[in-house]
Amino acid sequence: MASSTLRIGIAGYGNLGRGVLAAIAQQSDMQLVGVFTRRDPSSLQLPDSSIPVHRLQDASSHQHDIDVMILCGGSKDDLPVQGPQLAQWFNTVDSFDTHPKIPQYFEAVDEVARTHKHLSLISIGWDPGLFSVNRVMGESILPSGTNYTFWGKGVSQGHSDAIRHVAGVKGGVQYTVPVQAALEQVRAGRNPTLSTRQKHTRECYVVLQPGADAKRVEHDIATMPDYFADYDTTVHFISEEALKRDHSGMPHGGFVLRSGQSGHGDSQVIEFSLKLASNPGFTASVLVAYARAAWRMKATGQTGARTALDVAPGWLSPKSAELLRKELL
Amino acid sequence: MASSTLRIGIAGYGNLGRGVLAAIAQQSDMQLVGVFTRRDPSSLQLPDSSIPVHRLQDASSHQHDIDVMILCGGSKDDLPVQGPQLAQWFNTVDSFDTHPKIPQYFEAVDEVARTHKHLSLISIGWDPGLFSVNRVMGESILPSGTNYTFWGKGVSQGHSDAIRHVAGVKGGVQYTVPVQAALEQVRAGRNPTLSTRQKHTRECYVVLQPGADAKRVEHDIATMPDYFADYDTTVHFISEEALKRDHSGMPHGGFVLRSGQSGHGDSQVIEFSLKLASNPGFTASVLVAYARAAWRMKATGQTGARTALDVAPGWLSPKSAELLRKELL
Repeated sequence: MASSTLRIGIAGYGNLGRGVLAAIAQQSDMQLVGVFTRRDPSSLQLPDSSIPVHRLQDASSHQHDIDVMILCGGSKDDLPVQGPQLAQWFNTVDSFDTHPKIPQYFEAVDEVARTHKHLSLISIGWDPGLFSVNRVMGESILPSGTNYTFWGKGVSQGHSDAIRHVAGVKGGVQYTVPVQAALEQVRAGRNPTLSTRQKHTRECYVVLQPGADAKRVEHDIATMPDYFADYDTTVHFISEEALKRDHSGMPHGGFVLRSGQSGHGDSQVIEFSLKLASNPGFTASVLVAYARAAWRMKATGQTGARTALDVAPGWLSPKSAELLRKELL
Repeated sequence: MASSTLRIGIAGYGNLGRGVLAAIAQQSDMQLVGVFTRRDPSSLQLPDSSIPVHRLQDASSHQHDIDVMILCGGSKDDLPVQGPQLAQWFNTVDSFDTHPKIPQYFEAVDEVARTHKHLSLISIGWDPGLFSVNRVMGESILPSGTNYTFWGKGVSQGHSDAIRHVAGVKGGVQYTVPVQAALEQVRAGRNPTLSTRQKHTRECYVVLQPGADAKRVEHDIATMPDYFADYDTTVHFISEEALKRDHSGMPHGGFVLRSGQSGHGDSQVIEFSLKLASNPGFTASVLVAYARAAWRMKATGQTGARTALDVAPGWLSPKSAELLRKELL
């Protein structure tokens, strides 16, 4: 059964996988057993050459060496295949974050995990994940009230990609920025009704192709349906050097607020927020802590798919329940 | 076994008990079965005269009518007796908040609850409680980092009582106030080392007895060991009318921050905060949501004492796990 050290595998070695590798090294009770990749294993540059790298297609042959496999692929193409597949052989943790497809993904992973008696934590990270935890706790404690979620300031990969597909654009980054005045209204307990435009603005930093028409590019971005048309969008044209120098980080964050009234009508505001210098670095840290919970849940006989909403806070910690009560309660 | 409506009892009818009564009315799946008091039941003024009031000493005869008993007594004298006693007959939830005595209180309740196959959630509220949840999650996700807790702005009952015991004082209220500059340093990820004095100030609003020496009273308050000597304390002298008019509420709140670095050294800050117009009103709302969790945990076979650290967020909600995944994840 459980060794005292938790043996972790990483499936997928992009930004998130690199973050998970570094986050495991911060945890005293975990050991990285191997990295699994669809690429040629010899092509991967790991920070420590003693870490074994395997072909993802050979994963099943390592099923007895790994307590929890952390899935670091993307939600669009990788996880819908890898989630159910790897749940055959491993307890898993993943960061599937396509909100509308979560119920369908849950079912697919749940069926395999139950059949093969594994425990799979899906959609772990900060949204879905820690933000979801706070939405549910806020609504449960203050049933008479409103949930608010603000994102940013931070880089949206989807919106940055959308900019880069505009004709005349050589490169670019998009920041989602919460509207401070709206946030203050919510904090003051005023329960405002906020339109999409009133909650966030979008700031774009764009490098033009030589000869491109800046006015037209700005117009094409600001009027793009779904991505920008419903927002107040600002486009800054900058040099390629400035883009690389000032905008290559992946900061993010956001705010979840529950504003409500307790039984006698008193205004009560619960706020949770994140200020992240690195979005993938933080998501990796969350995945690793939840790997510990996945293993504990499995050890107490649970199987099937679960989410952050099913995980008790104490299960994330390497400390015993007794020590947590003494030190942190 | 479980009826579809959760049948709740309230033991103790002070500020907290009144808040719990009002909070139950906000929950669609709960029913208040009765209030239990050490006073003469006919002396209690309930908002709804149809609510049965019983003697606390007769509680055991109602053990089959109540799914969860919410204990609303004080931590100093009531709960150390009532917690273990009522765990004989009921699943219980309480707000025991004397931090250093929690391990001892846990043991006492745990033994009785295990023996009688009940589930007791102890030390539920916001600190201990929601703040503890955030301290544990923060430390688990970012093991390399520091926890910070700031309280206020809010009324401290203990410090207000201490003021009122100073010779020459007729009445008074004490507010604990977090130092904004310290909070901003933590938010900026600077990981400061903060002394007691650097984290909070204390503001006192005091009504003097006729003929009392204001200078002496101010000195006696500001130099009081444990309560004020280690803080920058401000004493405002006000009229009895102003005290009643401007300082009879029980606002409170505070901040739990985890400032740390993820695996590649990026600065990450997690913040949880509360801004409460009524401290007992909010604590009551938390107790009621956790009563639902207590019942669910019992229904899945758990017995003994537990804390907020053992409660998965989804168990607080009346919604099914499936609905939560769809709506709030």
